[in-house]
Amino acid sequence: MRELLEQRVFPLLGNTAPDGGHDSFVFDVDGAKLAFTTDSHVVRPLFFPGGDIGSLAVNGTVNDLAMSGARPLYLSVALIIEEGFPIAQLERVMGSMKLAADQAGVSLSTGDTKVVDKGKGDGLFITTAGVGAIEHGLTIAPGSVRPGDGIILSGDLGRHGISIMAEREGLSFETTVESDCAPLNSPVAALLEAELEIHCLRDLTRGGLATALKEIAMDSGHDIQIRESDIRVGDAVRGACEMLGLDPFYVANEGRMVVILPGAQVETALEILRKFSPTGSPTAIGFVKEERNRRLSLEGSLGVVRVLDLLSGEQLPRIC
Amino acid sequence: MRELLEQRVFPLLGNTAPDGGHDSFVFDVDGAKLAFTTDSHVVRPLFFPGGDIGSLAVNGTVNDLAMSGARPLYLSVALIIEEGFPIAQLERVMGSMKLAADQAGVSLSTGDTKVVDKGKGDGLFITTAGVGAIEHGLTIAPGSVRPGDGIILSGDLGRHGISIMAEREGLSFETTVESDCAPLNSPVAALLEAELEIHCLRDLTRGGLATALKEIAMDSGHDIQIRESDIRVGDAVRGACEMLGLDPFYVANEGRMVVILPGAQVETALEILRKFSPTGSPTAIGFVKEERNRRLSLEGSLGVVRVLDLLSGEQLPRIC
Repeated sequence: MRELLEQRVFPLLGNTAPDGGHDSFVFDVDGAKLAFTTDSHVVRPLFFPGGDIGSLAVNGTVNDLAMSGARPLYLSVALIIEEGFPIAQLERVMGSMKLAADQAGVSLSTGDTKVVDKGKGDGLFITTAGVGAIEHGLTIAPGSVRPGDGIILSGDLGRHGISIMAEREGLSFETTVESDCAPLNSPVAALLEAELEIHCLRDLTRGGLATALKEIAMDSGHDIQIRESDIRVGDAVRGACEMLGLDPFYVANEGRMVVILPGAQVETALEILRKFSPTGSPTAIGFVKEERNRRLSLEGSLGVVRVLDLLSGEQLPRIC
Repeated sequence: MRELLEQRVFPLLGNTAPDGGHDSFVFDVDGAKLAFTTDSHVVRPLFFPGGDIGSLAVNGTVNDLAMSGARPLYLSVALIIEEGFPIAQLERVMGSMKLAADQAGVSLSTGDTKVVDKGKGDGLFITTAGVGAIEHGLTIAPGSVRPGDGIILSGDLGRHGISIMAEREGLSFETTVESDCAPLNSPVAALLEAELEIHCLRDLTRGGLATALKEIAMDSGHDIQIRESDIRVGDAVRGACEMLGLDPFYVANEGRMVVILPGAQVETALEILRKFSPTGSPTAIGFVKEERNRRLSLEGSLGVVRVLDLLSGEQLPRIC
């Protein structure tokens, strides 16, 4: 279906690219530079360890804005509620949206509510859009990536995807895996404030680390190499991935990002990122190469290098 | 359910008022004044005479921005598609969104697509958000309304609501009633360009003319009086309303507005509005009174004045 959408439907919208929300649209009004983005959230189940559809909807849009280097300012909230959805659950979700907005320092400023008949929805869908201000002169995009750039990963991998899957399939592990759902705007603001020359930012949502970096390699033209030993995956996530036959490098996250910037600035950036506990312990995981084959490669723990590609199979549906 | 939402759920969102999209949120960034709004669209059926969910979603957000006096610039488009929804229908809707955006002079600039399992949606839901620029010094809001202000209605009433209902219930009238779905930003821009002192604008969506004016009377504190003989209702709409027991003053529109401005400027405003055929023939329908009882009254054709109130019963669901 996605292929059909991409080939036959999206082109009709003109310059719209409903691409899963990786990129914000950037525009100028009266000299002010702004970013604008939207995402619908249809996650199932609505509540999961570490978050719910409300915190996910707020953080998702906050992070889309932050990844374009914008300071998130205002979010809109549009609810599609299935008739009969318990008010107590709605109150819980609204409370968690308010909390997430306060934590990210954004305002939920406008909204809409529609109710659909029973059987014509799935409890609750939430669409957020966001506006942010771009207050620096950098072009934060794959096109700015240069050979010699270092790549920082802001924390451990795979917690959101595994948390959703465990909840949905009724799996239980020794430790409960909590989603990493969190806002990334504060660490990005701190990196910008330190006047680091950020070349590219990308949050690791659907498709995980490997997909994000492969897309950056393709869009920038440059090869990227990462080291397996520097990429942190928690024991519980690793165990769950082994059991389920998943590769944690491709599992979804909702509070992790990669930062690409000149190699000489990597240490300073790591020091700054360490101050933001929600993003976990950051590590330098690789670098951008001179070669222009649009290739992403992984140096394994025994020194063997293999190529990583985009996932060809089905991804887990309704993870966000 | 709406009552429960208003009392127990919306307050949790803080300053968000998911009020059906009457008002845009207005903010400043670096001296630029902007408006921001969102609406989810769950109209059923998706296609109706005079429009479809796509044109409705674009015009609805364009009009929300225009009613705050903003020039609509950019729209986001978030689709929630039920698995198995025919691609041909999706192409048709996307085409009509593109056309509506071109007609309104706005850009569909960012988007997202989610697919939900069969039976967990209803074909297609579309959430649009919009950003516009406010380029004048007026405060266009009920609080600016003054005694002696004239009230202009931009065209005939009730076409959207009757068109949807006829399509949904399989009713047929002698003439097909086409929705009035249309963008209102060009006539608003022309009024602003003529430097008219617009006090308030409101598009007549859910709840129709009477609800819009009663809300303005309540929010401004002033009484409003309108004349039945100056309010145009087409014969087909009137006939359908009589058959269905509906009052056309309360039926939804999607391309009609009221303009409230000083009485001395009414004639100039009417001349300008007549140039915009999509809004139909505008008429001066009433005025704002000195009295501050927050009352809306209607002078009937025989000179009898009666009070109009908010609808107490159920409104037609899923009309937008």
